[in-house]
Amino acid sequence: MKILAFGEVMMRMMPSDYKTLTQVNELEFLFTGTGVNILSGLYQMGEQVTLVTRLPDNAVGHAASASIRKLGIIDQYIVYGDQHMGIYFLEKGIGNRASQVTYLNRKDSSFGHSQFSDYDFSCLDGQDALHICGISLAMNKNVREVAFAIVQEAKKRGIKVIFDCNFRPSLWDENERVYVKDIYEEMLNQADIVFAGYKDATLLLEMTVDQNLPFEKQLEVLLRQMCQQYHIETIFGTNRKTDNLTGYMFCENQLITSTTYPLTVYDRVGGGDGFAAGAIYGYLHQMNHQQLINYATVSGILAHTTYGDSPIATKQQIIDFMENGKEDIKR
Amino acid sequence: MKILAFGEVMMRMMPSDYKTLTQVNELEFLFTGTGVNILSGLYQMGEQVTLVTRLPDNAVGHAASASIRKLGIIDQYIVYGDQHMGIYFLEKGIGNRASQVTYLNRKDSSFGHSQFSDYDFSCLDGQDALHICGISLAMNKNVREVAFAIVQEAKKRGIKVIFDCNFRPSLWDENERVYVKDIYEEMLNQADIVFAGYKDATLLLEMTVDQNLPFEKQLEVLLRQMCQQYHIETIFGTNRKTDNLTGYMFCENQLITSTTYPLTVYDRVGGGDGFAAGAIYGYLHQMNHQQLINYATVSGILAHTTYGDSPIATKQQIIDFMENGKEDIKR
Amino acid sequence: MKILAFGEVMMRMMPSDYKTLTQVNELEFLFTGTGVNILSGLYQMGEQVTLVTRLPDNAVGHAASASIRKLGIIDQYIVYGDQHMGIYFLEKGIGNRASQVTYLNRKDSSFGHSQFSDYDFSCLDGQDALHICGISLAMNKNVREVAFAIVQEAKKRGIKVIFDCNFRPSLWDENERVYVKDIYEEMLNQADIVFAGYKDATLLLEMTVDQNLPFEKQLEVLLRQMCQQYHIETIFGTNRKTDNLTGYMFCENQLITSTTYPLTVYDRVGGGDGFAAGAIYGYLHQMNHQQLINYATVSGILAHTTYGDSPIATKQQIIDFMENGKEDIKR
Amino acid sequence: MKILAFGEVMMRMMPSDYKTLTQVNELEFLFTGTGVNILSGLYQMGEQVTLVTRLPDNAVGHAASASIRKLGIIDQYIVYGDQHMGIYFLEKGIGNRASQVTYLNRKDSSFGHSQFSDYDFSCLDGQDALHICGISLAMNKNVREVAFAIVQEAKKRGIKVIFDCNFRPSLWDENERVYVKDIYEEMLNQADIVFAGYKDATLLLEMTVDQNLPFEKQLEVLLRQMCQQYHIETIFGTNRKTDNLTGYMFCENQLITSTTYPLTVYDRVGGGDGFAAGAIYGYLHQMNHQQLINYATVSGILAHTTYGDSPIATKQQIIDFMENGKEDIKR
Amino acid sequence: MKILAFGEVMMRMMPSDYKTLTQVNELEFLFTGTGVNILSGLYQMGEQVTLVTRLPDNAVGHAASASIRKLGIIDQYIVYGDQHMGIYFLEKGIGNRASQVTYLNRKDSSFGHSQFSDYDFSCLDGQDALHICGISLAMNKNVREVAFAIVQEAKKRGIKVIFDCNFRPSLWDENERVYVKDIYEEMLNQADIVFAGYKDATLLLEMTVDQNLPFEKQLEVLLRQMCQQYHIETIFGTNRKTDNLTGYMFCENQLITSTTYPLTVYDRVGGGDGFAAGAIYGYLHQMNHQQLINYATVSGILAHTTYGDSPIATKQQIIDFMENGKEDIKR
Amino acid sequence: MKILAFGEVMMRMMPSDYKTLTQVNELEFLFTGTGVNILSGLYQMGEQVTLVTRLPDNAVGHAASASIRKLGIIDQYIVYGDQHMGIYFLEKGIGNRASQVTYLNRKDSSFGHSQFSDYDFSCLDGQDALHICGISLAMNKNVREVAFAIVQEAKKRGIKVIFDCNFRPSLWDENERVYVKDIYEEMLNQADIVFAGYKDATLLLEMTVDQNLPFEKQLEVLLRQMCQQYHIETIFGTNRKTDNLTGYMFCENQLITSTTYPLTVYDRVGGGDGFAAGAIYGYLHQMNHQQLINYATVSGILAHTTYGDSPIATKQQIIDFMENGKEDIKR
Repeated sequence: MKILAFGEVMMRMMPSDYKTLTQVNELEFLFTGTGVNILSGLYQMGEQVTLVTRLPDNAVGHAASASIRKLGIIDQYIVYGDQHMGIYFLEKGIGNRASQVTYLNRKDSSFGHSQFSDYDFSCLDGQDALHICGISLAMNKNVREVAFAIVQEAKKRGIKVIFDCNFRPSLWDENERVYVKDIYEEMLNQADIVFAGYKDATLLLEMTVDQNLPFEKQLEVLLRQMCQQYHIETIFGTNRKTDNLTGYMFCENQLITSTTYPLTVYDRVGGGDGFAAGAIYGYLHQMNHQQLINYATVSGILAHTTYGDSPIATKQQIIDFMENGKEDIKR
Repeated sequence: MKILAFGEVMMRMMPSDYKTLTQVNELEFLFTGTGVNILSGLYQMGEQVTLVTRLPDNAVGHAASASIRKLGIIDQYIVYGDQHMGIYFLEKGIGNRASQVTYLNRKDSSFGHSQFSDYDFSCLDGQDALHICGISLAMNKNVREVAFAIVQEAKKRGIKVIFDCNFRPSLWDENERVYVKDIYEEMLNQADIVFAGYKDATLLLEMTVDQNLPFEKQLEVLLRQMCQQYHIETIFGTNRKTDNLTGYMFCENQLITSTTYPLTVYDRVGGGDGFAAGAIYGYLHQMNHQQLINYATVSGILAHTTYGDSPIATKQQIIDFMENGKEDIKR
Repeated sequence: MKILAFGEVMMRMMPSDYKTLTQVNELEFLFTGTGVNILSGLYQMGEQVTLVTRLPDNAVGHAASASIRKLGIIDQYIVYGDQHMGIYFLEKGIGNRASQVTYLNRKDSSFGHSQFSDYDFSCLDGQDALHICGISLAMNKNVREVAFAIVQEAKKRGIKVIFDCNFRPSLWDENERVYVKDIYEEMLNQADIVFAGYKDATLLLEMTVDQNLPFEKQLEVLLRQMCQQYHIETIFGTNRKTDNLTGYMFCENQLITSTTYPLTVYDRVGGGDGFAAGAIYGYLHQMNHQQLINYATVSGILAHTTYGDSPIATKQQIIDFMENGKEDIKR
Repeated sequence: MKILAFGEVMMRMMPSDYKTLTQVNELEFLFTGTGVNILSGLYQMGEQVTLVTRLPDNAVGHAASASIRKLGIIDQYIVYGDQHMGIYFLEKGIGNRASQVTYLNRKDSSFGHSQFSDYDFSCLDGQDALHICGISLAMNKNVREVAFAIVQEAKKRGIKVIFDCNFRPSLWDENERVYVKDIYEEMLNQADIVFAGYKDATLLLEMTVDQNLPFEKQLEVLLRQMCQQYHIETIFGTNRKTDNLTGYMFCENQLITSTTYPLTVYDRVGGGDGFAAGAIYGYLHQMNHQQLINYATVSGILAHTTYGDSPIATKQQIIDFMENGKEDIKR
Repeated sequence: MKILAFGEVMMRMMPSDYKTLTQVNELEFLFTGTGVNILSGLYQMGEQVTLVTRLPDNAVGHAASASIRKLGIIDQYIVYGDQHMGIYFLEKGIGNRASQVTYLNRKDSSFGHSQFSDYDFSCLDGQDALHICGISLAMNKNVREVAFAIVQEAKKRGIKVIFDCNFRPSLWDENERVYVKDIYEEMLNQADIVFAGYKDATLLLEMTVDQNLPFEKQLEVLLRQMCQQYHIETIFGTNRKTDNLTGYMFCENQLITSTTYPLTVYDRVGGGDGFAAGAIYGYLHQMNHQQLINYATVSGILAHTTYGDSPIATKQQIIDFMENGKEDIKR
Repeated sequence: MKILAFGEVMMRMMPSDYKTLTQVNELEFLFTGTGVNILSGLYQMGEQVTLVTRLPDNAVGHAASASIRKLGIIDQYIVYGDQHMGIYFLEKGIGNRASQVTYLNRKDSSFGHSQFSDYDFSCLDGQDALHICGISLAMNKNVREVAFAIVQEAKKRGIKVIFDCNFRPSLWDENERVYVKDIYEEMLNQADIVFAGYKDATLLLEMTVDQNLPFEKQLEVLLRQMCQQYHIETIFGTNRKTDNLTGYMFCENQLITSTTYPLTVYDRVGGGDGFAAGAIYGYLHQMNHQQLINYATVSGILAHTTYGDSPIATKQQIIDFMENGKEDIKR
């Protein structure tokens, strides 16, 4: 299968171990982003994956595309221009101490300054699915326009549109926040597959539900309404507790929930993208629903155990875990 | 507020991860000491903090003062002389294996050889509090004399005297051990605030208590007696269990205990200094007693989660934990 | 006491922390092998230990013997020839993700190509015990011949023969697998002390036992049979659960089991060799049986907490743990 | 002596050794800037040094001020706001390969967005000299206004104004470049001491000189004209060849040149700031002219041999080099 | 342009700095090989490059292909099987001490065991050139057969065949060495472009030349004879002195030599591949001969200044050097 | 041959690359000392080498002996006691900047506190030579007594006594300095082989020579006088210039000088010990004089090119250099 993702690439910088920025002279770095992460996971499952983005035309941008290639992602349609890229610093917490993320300027990145005319939409030819991240809608008007344009082009070609809500209120400018619901609804109306949950339904889309119902029942009501209202084929999501993870999918008017798997966390960022990669894989390969949602959820919990934001568990590792559970050592 | 501390600076050297000295070719190092640690914690809470000590007059001594400045501590009154500094090696244990601390020569350090005439007591002008560590009493006669002299100078200026018992029998020379109780009592008589606990009362000060009483009751009896006998305003301390920490303070004839907080340990050394920094901050800012002892205890448990001996949790982090408990990630 | 081991040395290469091979540019390495590991543990207990093996006659082989010396092992009887050494890559897992071991060519190593005439059997003079690892039997015909020859020489000199079954079906060539039982039985007939367990008895030696008996009872039946059939003095082994370890020994027609100790794992590989070192030490020093098996088991659980395959816990650390259990920090 | 500098702080990130960004997963970092560097050098010579700047109010900004304190610089007047800081990547070249510097967004930094009302000019009280870097003029209108305002305040207090031309055409916006000469002239008219050279005179200030004269003669003519036209007390500069460095100063109507010292380069960036620190020190301490310019030049060549942009040679090291030349090892 | 290379991939392992294997616990590693290196260089010049090889089907093999992708090389036609890969250790020398290379088993690698039926020759479709390395001829009969088969297929499709003699007597088995000349001649007869030099002509091909002629004249005679005898279009090579490098090419019956460029060495291995990449680029883009040979030689000298075996200088860096010579720093 | 050395072991700590102590958080360390170094060099030449010293009885002391074993030195006669070891910090300079060595307390080390009764002189049995370092004489009275006692024991057994003057005035206490000449003379009278030079003769032994003679002639006169006066069999030494090294030996009433070899320096400390190891090897193996002094000098120049104080060049590397000079790479 061939999957294309359109989305931002950022540089993540991290002190080693659990040290803080002030305690070190060196930072580990890697390149990340929802699109990068999902494609990384899909590559490990055997898919052909391509990223469309805009990177700075300098040593940093070219280091980014080299890293993306290393993850197995085709970089042929990446375009280059400007000099800036979003950077975030991750100071990993441990035990009682929370991890701390610090963003530097993100809006003025090469991607943030990109527009319709920068991209070559022939990248869509022959693709099976297109992934759009909700962050793209938040960047600014230009990027938002690109996102809608590429979705339109995909629809024309009969390509499945996958939309990850990924709603982060803090990314929206004060004066744009009033349009958020409209913008999201416009995208939801286009999407075939959507990653969303309880909070997206109630806070972003302002749906209501009888709070006296059990949580799972409430979720079912909300997802059903979402599917109907925006003509969505399938909605995927997870319920994450401190030490376990349960995935769910709503499709064919039905809520299917996964086994509840124990969660062990080594590098939290990107765990959700591991779930998404598994869900997209299972969906495109028409797994049966129960197996699909289990596969996706295991992909998610394994993504919590690998270094970096980008999932790297192989299909075999996921299946082994589904069959044997937690193992000690493989020789 | 302005706090001055008088105390030893040591160099800590540690293999990475959980390796032993024999397994590595490199050591991480940092500069530490009770005074350094408490001031580091207080700086993060917004105080103006100054260290008085004596360092070797060579590259090691100057690296020490640079590190101390980085922690936010004013180094203006540090004096330099001789060539040696105490060093300790920390081989971190894990699980069933205990951490191992190995000291090299400590008594012949620049600080250990220092005396009254080396220091400039104008450093006390304008200070709100002076911190003295019990280790200073153990070094040798010279250092002990400096400690008593600086306390006397502080009393003259109406500066609060804070004394951390920190009793370590092993540091006392055979032939000086007979005077230990007298020396500690002399210092306790001068101190306004004291860090001490059950063992200090019973073993060092040879107080007795009805062993049939519940532990907390016994503690109350002992601390009351200590306060009365030595005219101490407030005594602070903690009860540390494998996986939780409870702070307490005795003042106004009353024992106040903190919430019992779960304890997670990343780097144990300096955890007690985190408690002390929080307690001193709360005391100087006249927090109400219950909030004070909770603040101090949370400062202590966060100090167990950060790399190095010196606490670096900010006031905001402490308050967030008091309000929200353990969080996952902050963006 | 003087112990000699005959066995393979391999190079272990490992990404730092929990990263995978693809995520790093550097690998930590060390030299390992069952013989190396057991001797390393015995050295820490005060024994004089010597390794007999064959290493490549190049920079890699000489780095191996230097590392072996550092562990306290006498390298005087190591011989050099050829250019290759077995290498394995260890990608450490964490939480839900299993560790992954990848072997490169092992059979064509300098050791694998070694034969009778390469070695000088005067190395046996004055030894108290000889250790042979089951892996040596699997390498190939040449190495197997050396193993049997050195055992024969040891028997002649009245040296105790210790045999670690260490049966790994995957190491046996398709066409040699049919002779495995015969070969093992031949070795068991020579051995005084054997490391073996339930699976060795039932799968390798094809013994049967009433499956309705409780597990410990089954084990006793099997070990008794093994002792009688092959004239073995003592059999040692462990039952390893996720979070605890119980050692056992069968001798004088009796099964003695250790205290069940909690298991915490930092570096799993070599944990079994820690148990073996403790068992051999206790055996050679004629500890009473219950103390012996506890000592061996604690040696085993401490070996799970140290970096690298080779046990490095000292006798003192083992005894401290037996007496005080898990401690926090030692100064 | 007390010196205040107003200027930008940037984060420098560098692969280890001579690797490129694409070849590494880690970057060494430090905080730098002309002001930081000159103050660092002056601290090592015994001066009291203070930086005025604006840093992001987040973990990056606070790590920056901690590093600045470690260099010995007082951070009391640093203000915090916004979230961004300029970053540059340095890929060190070697031999035939040039070093490569890549800048990310610099104009939108916390400093770049700062204005008059952000700063507290009481920082000037009691200072002996104020250092202003030409880069501040290039940032944008706001920062430029701050620079002129602080200079005006300094003049009021009788503080010496030191201006480093540091002209970088690439930093000027297309539409601001037409005003460059005017702006620089305005600043030169205020400055007492100026760091400038041949190119500044001819390209920026558009002075002309008889090109048939020997170079040193041309330089003398230009500097004399600059001094007279802008009422400058002293102009300092260097002529840098591949393997040597010669400093010069023009004052009292006279050009004084230093000994030509051999140049060895370990970390080139910040070498000019080492010269400047030495020149300012010599000027403020009224060294005789020949000694002053030699001292400054040796400070410059030693700054080429230390890691990082910020000079860290001590006064003693400089004097030793002036007296003994290159030495091998000091015990 | 599209270039395909067929060749071995090895793992290179190296202690940091100038340490030896015995002095370190960590090794830097990378994946290398003549084919990898030349394609890496060509990618930086803008070409589409593809490697055909066989890698072990395990974590090591997949780490190799990820690294190859990072270099910009298409890994679509790499096949996987077996478990072994050639490894070499590089202990970098400095000054009077020579670098030391130690090979582990190379012949039993996945590539060494590969044969005709493993590969898919449709990889040749649409290619402009095919690169074959002389090492492939030395591996063994199987690999040699693949090399000749792929060349035959390339000829059929009208693809230019590039052959790098790379004659290493030590790689040839005793009993195969007698056929070496025949085998090389067979390949030379197929090749359009050949990388070869004086030694290849005289030692391998046993040509003779009047030793009284000046060296350059001798070279011209030999290359002319080689071109004529084997119907070679162009022969490329270099003369490497301690501190300079001169490239040459023989074509259209003429010897053209490059400027003699100064040579500075940071990482020597792969320097020749940098020259080859430049030569192939220039040849395929029909540069005029003098510019071509200069371009290739500068590509070669820059490859001596970058970390790793694989050239990473960009076309722009090469051109800048040709125009400006050695530069200091680029901003 | 079997060589025993009696001498101090120190811990060397060094920032990576050319950074200073203040610029790093980590230090590379190793264990060193004149005895350690010379034995390390001799081990590489094939000798059996044993160190006699006293180390602290803690983790640091045991790490030291493990490192010493790794170098190939027998640690059987090392004794343990006390808690301290001498430490020195090495900040490597580069180009115009000198390296800086900083010592911490050395006199109070376990070795410094050792005395006659701590050692077991049976270590001398079967040795061919004993090496004593002049530093041992400077430590204090106790250590000096041990040194003389062990020399006396060696003489009894007919073992060659090798004495390295290594005169460092700074190590002598003010009040002991008056006896220095007497003490050295006493040792010189016992020694068979001595490492000494011009300064030792003139400054320490207060010999005079006609300063108008050429330097080599003066040296000859002084060495002849030294040999005669103290009954020394052979004196070895070197003349070290910035970029070359010449060795010399005086024996059989004759001065023999080596070829003058170019010197390239990577890690200077221990270079002299490399020369000494070569000289001792050549002497014990009765090389002819010219070859001996060349061998020793090449051993010395190679020791300047390896990391650490302890020479690690093999006999083969020395011979290769003597035959082929500087080589590029060995495969």
